[in-house]
This record gives sequence, structure tokens and C-alpha cells, in this order.
Amino acid sequence: MMMQSGGNDDGVIRGLLRDRAGAIRAKDAGGALAAYAADAVAYDLAPPLAKAGPDALDWAGLEDWFSTWRGPVGYDPGDFSVMVGGDLACCHGFLRISGTKTDGEEVEVWTRQTLVLRRCAPSWLIVHEHTSVPFYMDGSYRAAVDLKP
Amino acid sequence: MMMQSGGNDDGVIRGLLRDRAGAIRAKDAGGALAAYAADAVAYDLAPPLAKAGPDALDWAGLEDWFSTWRGPVGYDPGDFSVMVGGDLACCHGFLRISGTKTDGEEVEVWTRQTLVLRRCAPSWLIVHEHTSVPFYMDGSYRAAVDLKP
Repeated sequence: MMMQSGGNDDGVIRGLLRDRAGAIRAKDAGGALAAYAADAVAYDLAPPLAKAGPDALDWAGLEDWFSTWRGPVGYDPGDFSVMVGGDLACCHGFLRISGTKTDGEEVEVWTRQTLVLRRCAPSWLIVHEHTSVPFYMDGSYRAAVDLKP
Repeated sequence: MMMQSGGNDDGVIRGLLRDRAGAIRAKDAGGALAAYAADAVAYDLAPPLAKAGPDALDWAGLEDWFSTWRGPVGYDPGDFSVMVGGDLACCHGFLRISGTKTDGEEVEVWTRQTLVLRRCAPSWLIVHEHTSVPFYMDGSYRAAVDLKP
């Protein structure tokens, strides 16, 4: 059975994503990483192409990233689509990352994010995360950080 | 029940991905688009942030993209991870896109791709596709098209 929405799984997964986003906004690395399985594979905004397991769950790296922001990080997922099938779930939608970097640069980037979760009763864990922006095909190879949904 | 690998679903899904890649290499838009559900949502390498339904299944746009390549398109997925839960499946891995553009430019780009599929007996259909490269966080906002797995 696959559900597009509704059901308790949907609510539990949305709660987990909300808590994770709240932890990131609060620069709480432990809270953010609690949402991930130990074997998670991440395709991040920054290189490399992929990080797996301990490299994906890089507490120190996440703390370093938090420290590049002055004050809280804006990490605001929109209304994600959630699909559940048995013990597997997939979510995707737009994620707005914003704030002020320590050098004073004001940032607001809309990204796309796809998440795959595995049931780990009574909750779920993220086993795969893919976050990106497209890039311009005009020969500049510029990341399209200026798009809006 | 969720399977990491093995089982007939795994084989059927890998066959579908192989056929789709073969169709793209052969510049067969109909064959490539046959793998997608009518309500598919695509997060592509090129803007916009997302395309849904008819915009994602854009036959003319795909033909246009094919026509930017001299000869066949290199579209070579590596050994994707396949997870199945009920009527939902998720796959992810590295995808190499290569070839010669009509202006003579030689292209070889390694990307990451995440696919979500819905069971549509006796086969499966892609309901979500996310393909990207990361970008450099050095202030250049350059797409990282020079990475290798």
C-alpha cells in the first residue's frame, strides 16, 4: 500500500522533518543528526558528489557550517510531498536556506530536497538526502542560486 | 517489508532503468519518457527548480536536448542502490553524462541521481527524479562539473 498523504506515518514523518529543521535553525548538531540512520548517504549542496555513513553524519563539519552564520540559520522546508510504502518513505519539496554569514553577506537560496526514510519503530530515520540547485546551461556553469519556486 | 536488494522487484526496476538509459543514449524520447508517471516531478540539472506533469514529460524539450549532441548521448548510470517498500521504490547513484556537443565541445560530467518509483503492475513508473551536481562554496557559485565518484 502506498499513501500520498494522511495516516499516522505521514504525521510522524512530517514531525521528524519539522524537528530536524528546528534543530538546524537552532544550530543544534546533535538534534539535527538524530534524524539520520548510521548508513545514510548524502548528496549535498557542497562537494563531494556523495558522503556516506560517518562522513554524512559529520558532527564537526555541521558545527563548522553553523559557525559560518551570524545568529540562527534560516532552514525552512515548504510543504513537502510525502509518500509511504511499507517501511520506506520518500519526501520532496523546496527548502529555503537564509541568513547572514559571519562576513556580513546576506544569503537567501531556494533549493530542492529529496529525502528517503526507513521505518525504525516507533519513528523513522533518513537513509538518503539529496539537496541541490540546478545550474545555468549558458556555458557559465553558474549554480542557479537566484531561483524561486 | 523493505528489501535492500534481491527479489523480483529489484530486477524489474533495474531493467526499467537500463532500458530508459538505453533509450536516452539512442535519442529515443518516447522510449525514455515511457518510464515516467503522468504526474512525475523532476528536479533537473537545468533550471527551473522543478518541473511537474506535462512540463516534466516534455517530449519536445527532450528532443531539443538530444539535438544539442553530435551522435549518441553518453548516459551511463553506475550501480544504483535500490530500496523497495510495498508499492514504493527509491534508487540512487552516480550518473555519467558524456559526448560531443554540436559545437564540438567534449563533455563528461558525473552527476548524482535519486529516483522514486511507484508500482504500476506488472512494472514500475518513475514519479520523482532528482539529478544534480554540487556547487563550490568558495564564493564563485560554480557548478562542480569536474568531480568524479
